[in-house]
Amino acid sequence: MTLYIIGLGLCDQNDISVKGLKIIKSCEKIYLENYTSLLQCSIKDLEELYGKKITISDRNSSEQGMNKIILEAKDQNVAFLVIGDPVSATTHIDIWKEALEKGTDVKIINNASIFTAIGITGLQLYKFGKTTSIPFLDDFPELETPYNILKKNKEIGYHTLFLLDIKADKDKFMTIKQAIDVLKDIESRKKEGIINDELFVVGCSRLGCPDFKVRSGKLKEINNIDFGKSPHCLIIPGDMHFLEEEILEFHNKN
Amino acid sequence: MTLYIIGLGLCDQNDISVKGLKIIKSCEKIYLENYTSLLQCSIKDLEELYGKKITISDRNSSEQGMNKIILEAKDQNVAFLVIGDPVSATTHIDIWKEALEKGTDVKIINNASIFTAIGITGLQLYKFGKTTSIPFLDDFPELETPYNILKKNKEIGYHTLFLLDIKADKDKFMTIKQAIDVLKDIESRKKEGIINDELFVVGCSRLGCPDFKVRSGKLKEINNIDFGKSPHCLIIPGDMHFLEEEILEFHNKN
Repeated sequence: MTLYIIGLGLCDQNDISVKGLKIIKSCEKIYLENYTSLLQCSIKDLEELYGKKITISDRNSSEQGMNKIILEAKDQNVAFLVIGDPVSATTHIDIWKEALEKGTDVKIINNASIFTAIGITGLQLYKFGKTTSIPFLDDFPELETPYNILKKNKEIGYHTLFLLDIKADKDKFMTIKQAIDVLKDIESRKKEGIINDELFVVGCSRLGCPDFKVRSGKLKEINNIDFGKSPHCLIIPGDMHFLEEEILEFHNKN
Repeated sequence: MTLYIIGLGLCDQNDISVKGLKIIKSCEKIYLENYTSLLQCSIKDLEELYGKKITISDRNSSEQGMNKIILEAKDQNVAFLVIGDPVSATTHIDIWKEALEKGTDVKIINNASIFTAIGITGLQLYKFGKTTSIPFLDDFPELETPYNILKKNKEIGYHTLFLLDIKADKDKFMTIKQAIDVLKDIESRKKEGIINDELFVVGCSRLGCPDFKVRSGKLKEINNIDFGKSPHCLIIPGDMHFLEEEILEFHNKN
């Protein structure tokens, strides 16, 4: 029997692969990890496609209860569903490793991820430097990491992707506006002149969905745009080729 | 009518999304771009799943003949299939933009990509710097770029992903051994001491497939490993967390 860690992709129930769906239909238990990201469809939509009940694995159960799931998969086929691509986050690689160590057969089914979906902006994936997350300041009032990583990337001309905090269990999804506020807060403490109103930034929402939005411009302009439903992400480009600029401008007109 | 640019994922015919497959079944023309990467299944396998004939779009026709495809999609639904994720490569974003400019409705269907599949190594996607390609030296005897990018990434502790040249039309797929030879050749010209036998490197093959292989160790050791069927890729890690090292070691034992 096997534990299948299956990526659901980025938008709705139909973004799962044909392979992933076939596997789910052969599984006796289906778990959904529901705290690191969010889909534009309901769990009911997933259940209808699968013809199966889903058990939600929240933050606690997916760290502590994972053992139970790994053990279960010794006697029956178990699917552990992950939004995006399972290998984007080290927690899922850890689960994969732990399962193998415990003698449970485990397979990963890849899917689309925000790490590549940002390619639609026209910014070359090749040219991104280190990625960073922006958490809510209440949790990390002394936060500096995203600022420092941006600074390092900027110095050598690399683009920076900021993943914005998602607390799906509390229904809290950081917006681009909130992310900019966090960066401004760090600027007000560090005063290195990295974040300012004239800085060129790219805001994106719902990448991987048909109604995705990409807008670029000065920070003060992007700050005033309504990006709609979550998830949002923010990019601060490094050195740009004119073809990259051209596609970004094209998005602004669409 | 719509031009659909659809990602096929990384391994075989069943890695397409449920959404992508549904769309293909509704399309009158199916093109497959077959020169930037390769699948572990045949075109016949794809055709059998789709119940449709596929037209191969080679390097020439996908650059010059793209206009024809974009025009065709004004009157009929057309699928343009791409291995991996369509937004990983700027050429597909250009097609998307060109179609919109010419008044053709166009939609992108994302999928898994090598840019995220490398996550299975245990190296954090967050910590990768700029990515670089290694072409065959016959085409670029003065090649320095991958070496220079590695150097820049190394200096600030970032991991470096090297994508290895694929000339599917000529059935030429660069192996890890060949990639190491190219890097050694550049070292012999630049003599900056970046590439040497003791350097810690990670070789990967067929990521996204069940029979993927990840091996890490000194360059001189990895150079002697048979990674089997293409595609291969090479990673040279920057600063590693012990958890990253742990997963890499685990791969060596599996």
